Amino acid sequence: MTAERPGVGHPPGAERPARAALTRVAEPGDEVVGRWLADLGATAVLRALREDRRLPGVSADRWAGLRGRAARAEPERDLAAAAGIGARFVCPGDREWPRQLDDLGPRRPIGLWVRGACSLRFVALRSVAVVGARACTDYGAHVAGELSGALAERGWTVVSGAAYGIDAAAHRGALAVGGATVAVLACGVDRPYPAGHRGLLDRVAACGLVVAELPPGEHPTRGRFLQRNRVIAALTRGTVVVEAARRSGSLVTARQAGRLGRALMAVPGPVTSGLSAGTHQLIREEAVLVGSAAEVVEMAGHMGELAREETGPAVPRDLLAPPAAQVLDALPAAGAVGADAVAAGACTSREAALARLRELSCLGFVERVGDRWQLCRTAARHADGLPPDA
Amino acid sequence: MTAERPGVGHPPGAERPARAALTRVAEPGDEVVGRWLADLGATAVLRALREDRRLPGVSADRWAGLRGRAARAEPERDLAAAAGIGARFVCPGDREWPRQLDDLGPRRPIGLWVRGACSLRFVALRSVAVVGARACTDYGAHVAGELSGALAERGWTVVSGAAYGIDAAAHRGALAVGGATVAVLACGVDRPYPAGHRGLLDRVAACGLVVAELPPGEHPTRGRFLQRNRVIAALTRGTVVVEAARRSGSLVTARQAGRLGRALMAVPGPVTSGLSAGTHQLIREEAVLVGSAAEVVEMAGHMGELAREETGPAVPRDLLAPPAAQVLDALPAAGAVGADAVAAGACTSREAALARLRELSCLGFVERVGDRWQLCRTAARHADGLPPDA
Repeated sequence: MTAERPGVGHPPGAERPARAALTRVAEPGDEVVGRWLADLGATAVLRALREDRRLPGVSADRWAGLRGRAARAEPERDLAAAAGIGARFVCPGDREWPRQLDDLGPRRPIGLWVRGACSLRFVALRSVAVVGARACTDYGAHVAGELSGALAERGWTVVSGAAYGIDAAAHRGALAVGGATVAVLACGVDRPYPAGHRGLLDRVAACGLVVAELPPGEHPTRGRFLQRNRVIAALTRGTVVVEAARRSGSLVTARQAGRLGRALMAVPGPVTSGLSAGTHQLIREEAVLVGSAAEVVEMAGHMGELAREETGPAVPRDLLAPPAAQVLDALPAAGAVGADAVAAGACTSREAALARLRELSCLGFVERVGDRWQLCRTAARHADGLPPDA
Repeated sequence: MTAERPGVGHPPGAERPARAALTRVAEPGDEVVGRWLADLGATAVLRALREDRRLPGVSADRWAGLRGRAARAEPERDLAAAAGIGARFVCPGDREWPRQLDDLGPRRPIGLWVRGACSLRFVALRSVAVVGARACTDYGAHVAGELSGALAERGWTVVSGAAYGIDAAAHRGALAVGGATVAVLACGVDRPYPAGHRGLLDRVAACGLVVAELPPGEHPTRGRFLQRNRVIAALTRGTVVVEAARRSGSLVTARQAGRLGRALMAVPGPVTSGLSAGTHQLIREEAVLVGSAAEVVEMAGHMGELAREETGPAVPRDLLAPPAAQVLDALPAAGAVGADAVAAGACTSREAALARLRELSCLGFVERVGDRWQLCRTAARHADGLPPDA
């Protein structure tokens, strides 16, 4: 944890440990607890549970269950455990909180446990979910990897669920070109799930973020997988389903994205393949057919308030946190330089410089050329004080 | 030519040879000639050309060209030549004329040269165009064949252009299950084009129809191929594009179908295949993604005035021409019988019985079970005088 991470800028006081505790108490997506939080705040909700002052909307049995979990919750220990594995807790009110999650209303996550150096808010600003079948075909894995690589090369963050099949191909495709990728888990961020993806999740955390609603140590359940999907849908500007059988879980994520006003996209395949039946069904119903990163960006780029990013940076340069602004200043007006040169110019470590460069890439200020970095053309104009059309 | 073909019932008098002559004079889809025909009738237009009384809307050079062709036209010889190869000339006003072609307005064909025993109007009543790339992939040929076979099994007529690739696979798929199929050519019906499809076109004529706007002996040109596509689009209730590169001629047919209010459908494929790029583009623009005959029928079945066919015959039984009614009467109330038994019962030849059975299948009265025929369940109810919901 360094002072330059935006999340640390505005701690919400006593609310933070209370929210951390409640991630151990309430299941993800619990609307009743979400309403209590909106009405009373986390500290009051946690106190009510611990003092057995029953809140409205739950049965006696369910209240007793929540109360039991609240009694056992040890947020300070969880926060320390998270710090021990390089993770932190990000919650509403933090500068790092991705505001688009507020669209979930009472189903908004209580907070997110985040492992990795980048700002969650920044990397999620221009992000797309690439999801699909676990038991995918070679075609599906190929397309997911190529698409994610091309999206990452355009400065888009690829968000997925770290499952076998399409999810893994999506993360790997982004990692292969040095892009940012976010894995949203249905268990604690300390849990490598699936176990075979321990190495993949470590690489994702190194170049992007591993994110979970559940506190360290929690294991995934069927319900948690479904709720995890709503976070993927809400975090991103659009969801691309690459392969899915009819009645697959990926279709649930996709339809949630549509309901949240996000771009809903699907990749077609042979009509002779059962693993394209779900994506074809989506296209027949509501999804836009996509086959390339350009088509994905065309759709997702126009969603939400930040569409103007397509022609320039997502936020004005003046609003950048000082560490990011220093890294941006370290880039030459023309030409590309390596991360070491940027780190030297910004007087920070190579790792911190890379994390800021990835954020600045997501924000549309810089772009990667091989293993070097340069100012985006439009960003350079902004930096020079010239109008975008100059 | 037999008395039971509906086209022979209402001959339009002197208009018929004049229209036959004009198919030799005007290029397919000539809107100026189409307007003359609507205003004056074919006999007057032909007389004006032969007597050099210039009609409005054409340059002196073009008038001279049309006049030269009119002077050389020998409609009686063309009609005799057509009869010699088992073909006939069908034009507006004939009972066999497919009324949906009138949607083309001044671009309506002057008439159609038709080779084969079935009624063009009847087989086209419930028909779908299956078109696509000449240089198709194995996947495309497989899907076109399977789809066309399944459509033919449901009593739908498959219309295509007899080209190599998707077109041929579509005709063959329908023929393989004994279904009706219509090949619309860009040359005379006596010309096997492409030459390698002589055998295929003979089989299409034997079990369905070979149709052309151009009189016997005419050869195809690029412009004639494009105009042929408008006939395919207008004749059918919908067009399915199976494989097409970007900027392919099949996309032109498809978009014409859409403009004519016909169902516009496309089959997806791998996004890695250039031969699916055109169908994906169509789906992104306006086409409905389809992958099965059920989905095609769902779309095309609801187009136009004849949607009620889906739940019963397209025309009331009373309106059937006597030969068709006799064949229908020869079918038992329950169970399936062979064509020989039907022919014996209707006191006609096996060939004539089969032509009527195929028409009745297109009209929704009968259905094929292997090589036997039976009354459709809904048609049987109509025949019994029971309401459809009984």
